Amino acid sequence: MITLLTDFGTADYFVPAVKGVILSVNPHVQVVDLTHEVPAQDIASGAFTLGACYHNFPAGTVHVAVVDPGVGSERRAIVAQVGGHLFVGPDNGIFSYVYAREAAVRVFHAAREEFFRRPASPTFHGRDVFAPLAAWLSRGLSPEAVGPEIADYVRAGLPKPVITGARTQGSVIHIDRFGNCVTNFTERELTPAQAVTGASLLVGGRRVAQFGTHFAQAARRDELMAYLGSAGYWEVALWHDSAAERLGVGRGAEAVLHLPSRNEGQQ
Amino acid sequence: MITLLTDFGTADYFVPAVKGVILSVNPHVQVVDLTHEVPAQDIASGAFTLGACYHNFPAGTVHVAVVDPGVGSERRAIVAQVGGHLFVGPDNGIFSYVYAREAAVRVFHAAREEFFRRPASPTFHGRDVFAPLAAWLSRGLSPEAVGPEIADYVRAGLPKPVITGARTQGSVIHIDRFGNCVTNFTERELTPAQAVTGASLLVGGRRVAQFGTHFAQAARRDELMAYLGSAGYWEVALWHDSAAERLGVGRGAEAVLHLPSRNEGQQ
Amino acid sequence: MITLLTDFGTADYFVPAVKGVILSVNPHVQVVDLTHEVPAQDIASGAFTLGACYHNFPAGTVHVAVVDPGVGSERRAIVAQVGGHLFVGPDNGIFSYVYAREAAVRVFHAAREEFFRRPASPTFHGRDVFAPLAAWLSRGLSPEAVGPEIADYVRAGLPKPVITGARTQGSVIHIDRFGNCVTNFTERELTPAQAVTGASLLVGGRRVAQFGTHFAQAARRDELMAYLGSAGYWEVALWHDSAAERLGVGRGAEAVLHLPSRNEGQQ
Repeated sequence: MITLLTDFGTADYFVPAVKGVILSVNPHVQVVDLTHEVPAQDIASGAFTLGACYHNFPAGTVHVAVVDPGVGSERRAIVAQVGGHLFVGPDNGIFSYVYAREAAVRVFHAAREEFFRRPASPTFHGRDVFAPLAAWLSRGLSPEAVGPEIADYVRAGLPKPVITGARTQGSVIHIDRFGNCVTNFTERELTPAQAVTGASLLVGGRRVAQFGTHFAQAARRDELMAYLGSAGYWEVALWHDSAAERLGVGRGAEAVLHLPSRNEGQQ
Repeated sequence: MITLLTDFGTADYFVPAVKGVILSVNPHVQVVDLTHEVPAQDIASGAFTLGACYHNFPAGTVHVAVVDPGVGSERRAIVAQVGGHLFVGPDNGIFSYVYAREAAVRVFHAAREEFFRRPASPTFHGRDVFAPLAAWLSRGLSPEAVGPEIADYVRAGLPKPVITGARTQGSVIHIDRFGNCVTNFTERELTPAQAVTGASLLVGGRRVAQFGTHFAQAARRDELMAYLGSAGYWEVALWHDSAAERLGVGRGAEAVLHLPSRNEGQQ
Repeated sequence: MITLLTDFGTADYFVPAVKGVILSVNPHVQVVDLTHEVPAQDIASGAFTLGACYHNFPAGTVHVAVVDPGVGSERRAIVAQVGGHLFVGPDNGIFSYVYAREAAVRVFHAAREEFFRRPASPTFHGRDVFAPLAAWLSRGLSPEAVGPEIADYVRAGLPKPVITGARTQGSVIHIDRFGNCVTNFTERELTPAQAVTGASLLVGGRRVAQFGTHFAQAARRDELMAYLGSAGYWEVALWHDSAAERLGVGRGAEAVLHLPSRNEGQQ
């Protein structure tokens, strides 16, 4: 099985060219789209989306991620072996959420060009480099065979919450297409039980009015609501409206959690 | 074979998470997208689209439909066995067109949680409840095994045309993405032969100028045209323009058919 | 394997209806989307996209293309056998890039209705004519069996560059979704080596400032850049902006290449 995540959109020949190359090398593989609507060249957004769903696929899946502003330059093509899955793409941080989630990470520089289409277009490594690599891996090629193992692969420093007594300093790490603001607070920083017993959450300086588990529960639909989202992070949302727009915040905005009980527990 | 219809869009991790879960339970099943662009939480629109194409798939197909404003609340998860197909989704009327089309309907409340991913996220039953259920059904699980059969499932009252002599009172049941207005008039209310011999059709109070069988036939391209559409309903359209916008109508708008010949036939 | 290219969009029941019919005839075939976002009824755009990627698929693939403003009229349904691939669609020029690329072309008028769904809707030949035809072909039906071979199939005259000494007169043949302007200049008219030694390129009357091989190389990101694109044509692009909009050009706009070295070589 091979999955694809790109910023190619679905209107042009880019995605089908990638699929055609894969299916020419391995006609029996199943190709599944993750998304092709990553905002153009937005590595952080693509990395979040990949990190939120790759683990739902069976072990052995090959995941191709092409958000690649440096295509044609000296950035390396890599194959990463992580948590029973394989990842193929540019070495630009696109796999950062994957690396952060798993203990054992091995990364190989895909330097051996015999697995590429040649001549490879300098503008379309998705079709000419990553697609054939993924197809050969899906046919059993060992990651070790693509080139030397490397240790200096690019790993974006994902922002971690900082706890100081009752105060936890975090940030917005993703805005989804509904305008929901995904923070970097997980169940480690705030359990659903704690949320309803005195916690307060501020995003972009504004206080979130309600904690809950799902939308249908919202008491007042015109007020900000926070819930532990399905990707494992606390999200801030508005009923039928964009929280990001109403708050005027984007990725990187400050999120602050106050949890009086933790402070008392520590005293 | 499993099909998916949702209002998730294709930009986020929602759809691939659903597919990953399905393929983890049944790696050999073919997953086909119906659409993921149902307008957010618009059950009636999703129900129309599902009803217009599920029957083109082979018998035995499992159709998953997730337009689910009540996710996390008390609304039931159901499995419906209808016309040789299986349907999995929330019990909120999303299968109303399916129920209306077929004689034998059996509906089961999917109460047995051993077929879910656990713990199920309260905001993402598509991934944690409906996807694994569908995958198990595609592997041969009997609908009877998911929980008790129920009779009080939600069945939206689809509007039926009312015939009074020469006048048939109906409504617009769907606006497609081109702005075509789909009415609830079928061949039963108006045959193509009748259409060209004295029928008149008003939508939103405005008279449709031409009847035909297809666009290329339109005599005057700036006037409203009605034809028996491929979903089996009479549709009102404009050449390269939105009939819905020009008429200022939406779903539920009045459609009135005058058929003098029927009146005479009845006298 | 069957691919689909249409202008249906992905919001309505049109694409899944086509897939359902295909999979009802041949449940084991793999169906791959090329794109469903061809601008409505834009045959030239669909033809370009199909021509840019069909050859990446394995020989024996059946390609269905439905951009069909004449649906329901007298235009013929055809099956083309070209370069080891099969093509199914309306006879309206949608396969022009395919015909232009390959030496051996055989085209058959799909006149035998026993391979259609009947009665075929006059507005939806994608579902009722082309889908079942493609499915039967994927099961081994011979193209000769669908109807008589024809010689007068529609073949759009693709614009060819005209070389007059140092000057080559060409045009924009496609605008992609990023606003990149694809010209009809290939490596035959301009090699990458020639590009960096004195060539000049004008599109819509404005001179392109830089030649390169890829975006990351662009010296000045606010100026027009030309590179040999992955479809084999020279493209003019702007970093993070629409070249087509900034130039105010569309398909058919003039492109002029000056290549002093060629002139000298000929003297």
